[in-house]
Amino acid sequence: MAQSLSIQKLLDEFERLPGIGPKSAQRIVYWLLNTDKADAARLAQAIVEVKETVHFCAQCFNYSEAELCPLCSNPERDQSMICVVSEPRDIAAIEKTYTFNGLYHVLGGAISPIDGIGADDLRVKELLGRLADTGVTEIILACNPNVEGETTATYLARLIKPLGIKVTRLASGLPVGGDLEFADEITLGRAIESRREL
Amino acid sequence: MAQSLSIQKLLDEFERLPGIGPKSAQRIVYWLLNTDKADAARLAQAIVEVKETVHFCAQCFNYSEAELCPLCSNPERDQSMICVVSEPRDIAAIEKTYTFNGLYHVLGGAISPIDGIGADDLRVKELLGRLADTGVTEIILACNPNVEGETTATYLARLIKPLGIKVTRLASGLPVGGDLEFADEITLGRAIESRREL
Repeated sequence: MAQSLSIQKLLDEFERLPGIGPKSAQRIVYWLLNTDKADAARLAQAIVEVKETVHFCAQCFNYSEAELCPLCSNPERDQSMICVVSEPRDIAAIEKTYTFNGLYHVLGGAISPIDGIGADDLRVKELLGRLADTGVTEIILACNPNVEGETTATYLARLIKPLGIKVTRLASGLPVGGDLEFADEITLGRAIESRREL
Repeated sequence: MAQSLSIQKLLDEFERLPGIGPKSAQRIVYWLLNTDKADAARLAQAIVEVKETVHFCAQCFNYSEAELCPLCSNPERDQSMICVVSEPRDIAAIEKTYTFNGLYHVLGGAISPIDGIGADDLRVKELLGRLADTGVTEIILACNPNVEGETTATYLARLIKPLGIKVTRLASGLPVGGDLEFADEITLGRAIESRREL
């Protein structure tokens, strides 16, 4: 074996990360071997720190260091709109668009009978609890546009609409910059159904 | 800001690694947030450990935990051949081919006047020292097939040949599985020059 034990161990650890194959792992490990000890220590420290300080926001279940996440504790966010997402990473994606200024609610997954995930496994009760006390007027269902996401959205819409709260869903259609020719039939079909008058 | 501080810090640290862009960093960080604390701790620990235990082999300057690397301390390796490489990662690449069973010597770079790197900045003296006392009969120059590598190989050949030691260089030619059509002119030219009789 050409590799010493602790190098092999680090290679194995990096290969377990998503999107990192043997070649990328090797590149990173040799980079770390070559870099300052302080640089490597900072990475290790950041990993430990994130696991120690980050937990779920008590209100929206986004990742947070404080009891409430930076979004929930920001008084400038519109308290009357809640955008319901499947995972915390979806919040980061939506925040990058700068088109939404309300609050979020992380379900922690989507209804998927095939994986044995029902509504009880998601944070649905917590969402309904938030609707009870506050002046929420609109729920945006930003579940993923796949079977599980659609099922979850339909289920939630049926629960929330009777409460007299407006329920909306992200639009389906052609990706901006995309080519009509390369759109799949379902997406193109949705784009036609949801056509807008100009 | 949607991200808490320690998440942002970890994102920044991952983005500094080679081959990791903002999207990959985000994917890894969310994976780490979602994984067991023990899993994350193991990665952090492996990073710290590698920087603490790994240094250079006293003989060949490969990365090693012990004074001599696993290759130098292996009595079954052919002590009469030394393969000279630029970086420790080149050893891993050659070892994977299972075609070389000798020892290595890591120069720690290549001669590059444009970057101000001369022969004195490489471990050339250490290489000559190894030739003095042992029964080395062949030096394989496995410097990279680029301008700096060729310069380094030429320089070393001129130093070592007068000592009566056989000096060889890795063959240049077409990559196996490659297409003639897609080979660059220099590689194809070398392949013609170095043609073999069948």
